Amino acid sequence: MSNTRPALKLTHAAALKLLAAAAAKATEMGQPQVIVIVDEGCNTLALLRMDGSRILSVDTATAKAMTAAATGHPTGGLPVEAETRLAIGSHGKMTNLKGGLPIIVDGHLVGGIGVGSGTGEQDLMVATAALAAL
Amino acid sequence: MSNTRPALKLTHAAALKLLAAAAAKATEMGQPQVIVIVDEGCNTLALLRMDGSRILSVDTATAKAMTAAATGHPTGGLPVEAETRLAIGSHGKMTNLKGGLPIIVDGHLVGGIGVGSGTGEQDLMVATAALAAL
Amino acid sequence: MSNTRPALKLTHAAALKLLAAAAAKATEMGQPQVIVIVDEGCNTLALLRMDGSRILSVDTATAKAMTAAATGHPTGGLPVEAETRLAIGSHGKMTNLKGGLPIIVDGHLVGGIGVGSGTGEQDLMVATAALAAL
Amino acid sequence: MSNTRPALKLTHAAALKLLAAAAAKATEMGQPQVIVIVDEGCNTLALLRMDGSRILSVDTATAKAMTAAATGHPTGGLPVEAETRLAIGSHGKMTNLKGGLPIIVDGHLVGGIGVGSGTGEQDLMVATAALAAL
Repeated sequence: MSNTRPALKLTHAAALKLLAAAAAKATEMGQPQVIVIVDEGCNTLALLRMDGSRILSVDTATAKAMTAAATGHPTGGLPVEAETRLAIGSHGKMTNLKGGLPIIVDGHLVGGIGVGSGTGEQDLMVATAALAAL
Repeated sequence: MSNTRPALKLTHAAALKLLAAAAAKATEMGQPQVIVIVDEGCNTLALLRMDGSRILSVDTATAKAMTAAATGHPTGGLPVEAETRLAIGSHGKMTNLKGGLPIIVDGHLVGGIGVGSGTGEQDLMVATAALAAL
Repeated sequence: MSNTRPALKLTHAAALKLLAAAAAKATEMGQPQVIVIVDEGCNTLALLRMDGSRILSVDTATAKAMTAAATGHPTGGLPVEAETRLAIGSHGKMTNLKGGLPIIVDGHLVGGIGVGSGTGEQDLMVATAALAAL
Repeated sequence: MSNTRPALKLTHAAALKLLAAAAAKATEMGQPQVIVIVDEGCNTLALLRMDGSRILSVDTATAKAMTAAATGHPTGGLPVEAETRLAIGSHGKMTNLKGGLPIIVDGHLVGGIGVGSGTGEQDLMVATAALAAL
């Protein structure tokens, strides 16, 4: 039996494409955003804090990206009765805030994108637009 | 395209004026307070912990100042359904406690003031009195 | 036997006097500074970050103030062979950087002042000038 | 007396230009890098972790960027006798590792860039190439 298994890793070039597409959408919407891309290990690959975005959204956008990368699902769907436990138990890394999406390529979960500074709906629109660029 | 954008920074002299005015109001009210001033990047500019104030209010007053500086709005107005998510996801920096006000000069958001140790209403009165000194 | 012992606590009014005197000296010297006052429990009483000072000096000035308050001596005199152990073992709170002085009133150790952003000698001059104001 | 002072802020567009130029240089050199851009308040504006770079360099590249932004000088020039004190006293934010450069536009210090994963000389070459893109 092999000691290893093949995997796919998101490239940094793809991460830059995600940042650029997210920033373009945010600019078009007139809502500056913080955008964070993490890999499948929840480690940050790329980050952009746009002019006029909220600095504290660096934390929440990172949590959104991590949650989406860890679960493979859009953020916002944790069971409400468990979300505070999960949030505290993960030291804030698991969040039920909207605006995080898993990055799935050819059926493989390779990371997550988190967007924050707008409403949850705005954040989600920007994350969705970013993924369309891949 | 320019690589920079013009901005205004709150001076430390103004921060000291805010501390002094806040402390005077708190003394007049008979409620000692912790007062924190942060700049637009949520970095602390000035802090005063008054005799008889609550030491743990250093944390909450800082969160209030940061939240007001990051959002540009008085604290206490986050959507109730999101406030716990935002608080945990920001590692305690975003708060819905009353007593934080943005510092806005000539239409520019240049920081935030956070006050804590009294009731939310008392904290807000002290923060309001401080801003009147600018 | 009594369960308590009398103590002296530095007032916040005195802490503000220290900030003002330190800032005046720093301005006179043309070297903006970060100034931190802690009480005898090493808890911050007052802080000022002057325009043009180094933001990372908030950490080091706090360490200087804490070290002086904890030891009762000016910073810089820890045994060289132990200083790195003490620094790491205290999570950075004990420092051998110059610029911290104990605040001693009527023979009682009531806190510490830490100054940072200049050279060690400049920092010490500002701390010394501040104490002269008490 | 005015309560504010004029300042310049690095734009996120400029931060993206810095990332792109740094990545291009790193690719040309065959040495993948982590690149971090911070603003004048030492808050991260943009980050890129290139394929094949060292993940722990996220921490050191951030420290390099912060040190350059806080001091206004290239990293590596702290007095050797003080560097360990400064590093520990700043909780690792001040570093004497090479590869950090201040970002100065029209004579104003607006942030710092930190590069890490190669040798100090390689890191510095990449940071230098990035700044040339502004």
